[in-house]
Amino acid sequence: MKLVRYGNPGAEKPGIVDAEGTIRDISGIVPDLAGKALTRASLARIAAVDPKTLPAVPAGTRLGPCVGNVRNFIAVGLNYADHAAETNSPIPKEPILFNKAPSCIVGPNDDVIVPRGSQKTDWEVELAVVIGEEASYVEEKDALDYVAGYCVCNDVSEREYQIERGGQWAKGKGCPTFGPLGPWLVTTDEIKDVQNLSMWLEVNGERVQDGSTKTMIFSVPFLVSYISQFMKLEPGDVITTGTPPGVGMGMKPPRFLKGGEVVELGIEGLGTQKQQVRAYQS
Amino acid sequence: MKLVRYGNPGAEKPGIVDAEGTIRDISGIVPDLAGKALTRASLARIAAVDPKTLPAVPAGTRLGPCVGNVRNFIAVGLNYADHAAETNSPIPKEPILFNKAPSCIVGPNDDVIVPRGSQKTDWEVELAVVIGEEASYVEEKDALDYVAGYCVCNDVSEREYQIERGGQWAKGKGCPTFGPLGPWLVTTDEIKDVQNLSMWLEVNGERVQDGSTKTMIFSVPFLVSYISQFMKLEPGDVITTGTPPGVGMGMKPPRFLKGGEVVELGIEGLGTQKQQVRAYQS
Repeated sequence: MKLVRYGNPGAEKPGIVDAEGTIRDISGIVPDLAGKALTRASLARIAAVDPKTLPAVPAGTRLGPCVGNVRNFIAVGLNYADHAAETNSPIPKEPILFNKAPSCIVGPNDDVIVPRGSQKTDWEVELAVVIGEEASYVEEKDALDYVAGYCVCNDVSEREYQIERGGQWAKGKGCPTFGPLGPWLVTTDEIKDVQNLSMWLEVNGERVQDGSTKTMIFSVPFLVSYISQFMKLEPGDVITTGTPPGVGMGMKPPRFLKGGEVVELGIEGLGTQKQQVRAYQS
Repeated sequence: MKLVRYGNPGAEKPGIVDAEGTIRDISGIVPDLAGKALTRASLARIAAVDPKTLPAVPAGTRLGPCVGNVRNFIAVGLNYADHAAETNSPIPKEPILFNKAPSCIVGPNDDVIVPRGSQKTDWEVELAVVIGEEASYVEEKDALDYVAGYCVCNDVSEREYQIERGGQWAKGKGCPTFGPLGPWLVTTDEIKDVQNLSMWLEVNGERVQDGSTKTMIFSVPFLVSYISQFMKLEPGDVITTGTPPGVGMGMKPPRFLKGGEVVELGIEGLGTQKQQVRAYQS
């Protein structure tokens, strides 16, 4: 299934994309695509309904982030060997984990805002994993049983805040609008091999990232298992799993986003995002 | 006001502590002490009701964490000069920020579980700040207007996971039960000077931390303003503001928590917590 949240910011309703690409309202089945609505049992209830019997949503309706009320938005750093190289970082021995503030989450096509005074706002196309079941100390071989599905994430990053402002990366990862999620939450049954999906990102139509999930250092099942050793994952938590090469920080000279630019990105089977970049205005 | 959440884990109801120390149910006024129930307007609605007209909750009812559905649980590292010294760390030029997984939050007197295989589980008494209004780019002079109140937090930490497992601190800060919050959410009007509160922590009755919020490097208003430059704070977010000296890691030799031990901690005006320490059992 391809699940969406549609409507105005903060008032999104849940929907499903039918075989013709029309969004159908599923708010009669689940209140939101959030928390316990993402468990296996809940997804089975949605799957049991024929989409054609559900109300159609007008074309052109805004898409919100494909998961609501995210509490733990975890990111994995330097999870592609080539990306580690372009940032002059050693390949990590264990996954690097940090958090994005949940308040940074926006819809897939909402504007991305360059923070006040920022000079180093950067892009990162990433595969995001949406948790469906509570997961604590799970084994790698069972880890995908705890996953509801996948979506595209632009892990927008402010490199000065991340690297030059004292210690931890969270400062440069959670600014408002730094977490576009969607367009769809694609359930795991639709993705044959999550470690073989092409992914790309363009700035103003120029392709800057062109990679594949097959070059991840730590696989999705490994990451879910690994993270669950350190914290309990809950339905609706999101893990964004790192970016392939081609970020602005790695260019010579480095190149960062400015108001008026356009970012488009996508992952095979998970759809595409398109964001207008805007300068901060108070 | 002293606000609480009482009842079984995951099913807590909101309450207020009356002048005699009896908890009164306020679930007829707000659905939970979470999110928008913590705004100034909502707190005013609670304050307008005479507690004696509300149902009394039986004495001995379990207290849950005093804030529900926390999404962004932010921690400030090394925010007391003496604590930085005991961990052999330089005094930070800017606040160090990291996240605790929201799933680690428990009630003030719930058991603290030493994670599977952990050898270095440590304690940290901290003043936690509960956000009441959305805060983005707020100035220090206005920052307390965005705060609903304060509570005690034990920022339980696994030092090997935090420091020896690759890069970022989040790994050692969000294990299950690592975030006792409470007993009370004390509204700001009850705390005359948040930068002059004594605080302490005892392990098996032995006082190991004995400090005051007056030795914070970065004050509460500074922190709220500072963090709001990097991320939008939302009602129900929690900022725990660092610990004074006396953690196990700083002892010679270092000393860490084991199953069977007891931790008690408190902050002037904010009440006390008491946790039994348990070894992990699958």
